Amino acid sequence: MDKRPIGVFDSGMGGLTVVKEIRRLMPNESIIYFGDTGRVPYGNRGTDTIIKYVKQDINFLKSNDIKAIVVACGTASAVALPAINDSDVPIIGVVEPTAQYALDTTKNGKIGIIGTTATINSGMYQSLLSAKNGITVYEKACPLFVPLAENGYSNSEVARIVAKDYLWDLKEKGVDTLILGCTHYPLLKNAIKDIMGDGVTLINCGLPTANYLLKTLKENDCLSDGTPAHKYYVSDMTDEFVSLARTFLGDGVDIEKTDINNY
Amino acid sequence: MDKRPIGVFDSGMGGLTVVKEIRRLMPNESIIYFGDTGRVPYGNRGTDTIIKYVKQDINFLKSNDIKAIVVACGTASAVALPAINDSDVPIIGVVEPTAQYALDTTKNGKIGIIGTTATINSGMYQSLLSAKNGITVYEKACPLFVPLAENGYSNSEVARIVAKDYLWDLKEKGVDTLILGCTHYPLLKNAIKDIMGDGVTLINCGLPTANYLLKTLKENDCLSDGTPAHKYYVSDMTDEFVSLARTFLGDGVDIEKTDINNY
Repeated sequence: MDKRPIGVFDSGMGGLTVVKEIRRLMPNESIIYFGDTGRVPYGNRGTDTIIKYVKQDINFLKSNDIKAIVVACGTASAVALPAINDSDVPIIGVVEPTAQYALDTTKNGKIGIIGTTATINSGMYQSLLSAKNGITVYEKACPLFVPLAENGYSNSEVARIVAKDYLWDLKEKGVDTLILGCTHYPLLKNAIKDIMGDGVTLINCGLPTANYLLKTLKENDCLSDGTPAHKYYVSDMTDEFVSLARTFLGDGVDIEKTDINNY
Repeated sequence: MDKRPIGVFDSGMGGLTVVKEIRRLMPNESIIYFGDTGRVPYGNRGTDTIIKYVKQDINFLKSNDIKAIVVACGTASAVALPAINDSDVPIIGVVEPTAQYALDTTKNGKIGIIGTTATINSGMYQSLLSAKNGITVYEKACPLFVPLAENGYSNSEVARIVAKDYLWDLKEKGVDTLILGCTHYPLLKNAIKDIMGDGVTLINCGLPTANYLLKTLKENDCLSDGTPAHKYYVSDMTDEFVSLARTFLGDGVDIEKTDINNY
C-alpha cells in the first residue's frame, strides 16, 4: 500500500490521453502531471536536447515525492529513456508496453509504426519488434500530425490529405496493426482510419501503458486505496492547455505553472 | 564607423529571411545570429514565457559585443519588445518598420495583418495602424502556417486549403495590402498569393526592417566598412536547421550550439 502519487509527464497536452486511461483503470491513484508546454514539441528536436528536457521533467516529478513515473510522450520514451539511468523510482515509458500490445494484436505479422521524426529516427520500436520471429516492421514519421491536432484540424480534409501522404505506403505494405507512437495521434484517429481502413487495428499508447503501470504497482504492492487528488503543472500557462485540460479532466482541474529550468 | 557585429535573433529559422535582406543591403556588416531552435515556436506560447525567452535571447546577443539588435521574429517583436526597457544598444523589431511600409503601400486604406496567435492577440499592429486616419485593419491568426512551412508543405494543396480557411475573410473585406507578420510566412507566399490574388501587395518584414536598420546605423554613424564575418548560434542543433541555413546562406556557414538558459 502506497498513497504517494504517480508522476506523469508529456511534452504538452498529448499525455492527457494516457492520464485518462490511468484514472479509469486505477481510480484510487493520485496523479501529478507535468506538461512541458513552454518547450513543446519535442518530436523535431535533437537527441541531446530531448534528453536534457526529459531529465528536468523527471527531476521535477521526483521533487514531488512520487512512487512511479509514467513517460506519457512517445518521443521522450523512445529517444531519452534509453539514455537515462535512474533507479530511485520505476520509470515506465510507452514504447515497451505498446510494442508488446502490437505483437499480441497482429495476425499477419506486419506492424506499422507512426510517430514524430525523433521517435522514428530513434529506431526503438523497430529494434524491439523486428527482433521477434515472423514480424516485419514498417515505419513513417508524421511531423505535421501534432500541429494539425493542436490547431483544430483533427477532423478535416487537410488531415485526410496529410494522412494519405504519410500512411499510403504502410497501407500498401498490408500492415494489419498500426502503432500510434505519439500520444497526440488518437486525436487524429478518424483521418487515420479513413486511410488505413477497417481491417487495420490502431494501437494507442494509453491503454497498454496504463495496464503496465497497474501490473508494476501490484507487483511492488504499492497500489493506493485512498481518495485520489490530482495536480497538473505546466511550464507555460496557455489558454489552449487550460481549455483542453478542462475538456479532458473536468472543470475543477487544478493547474499551476512551474519553472522547469529550476530542475 | 563601428565594426562590431549586428545581433539578430528569431525563435528559429524564419529570421534568416531577414538576415538575407540585411546582408544584401549592408554587405560590409558582420552578423551574429541566434535561432532559438530548442524552444521554437514562440507564437502559441503565453506572454510571460515569450518575454522571458526574448530577454534571454537579447542577453545572449549582448554578451557578444554587438552594436545593434534586430528582432527578426514577428512574435518576439509584437509581444515582448513593448515590455523590454533596454537602452544599452538599439533594438529594432519588425513591427514598426513593416507597419510604416504597409501605410506607404496601401491605396484603399484597407490593410490585412496575418501572424501567429500571440502576435495577433498582442494588438501591436492593430494599435499602430488604426491610429492613422483613413486606415481600416483586418487581422487573422494563422497558427498552422509555421508548421506547414517547417514540414515541407509550403507549396502544396494542403497549404492552399489552409490559406483559404485563414485568408478568405481578409480577401472578402477588400484589403489591398497584406502584412506577413511572421518571418516564416514568405515561404508560403505562393499559397497566400493564390488566395489573395494579384491585386493585393504582400509585405514581408525583411526589407522594411533591414532598411530601418540601415537608417539607424547611418544616423548613429556606425556602419562598418570592414570585411564581414558571420556567426550563427542555435539552442538545438537539428539537421533541419543546418540544412536550411546552408540553403539560405551557403555551404561554408558556421553554426554553433549554445545553452540559452545560461543567459
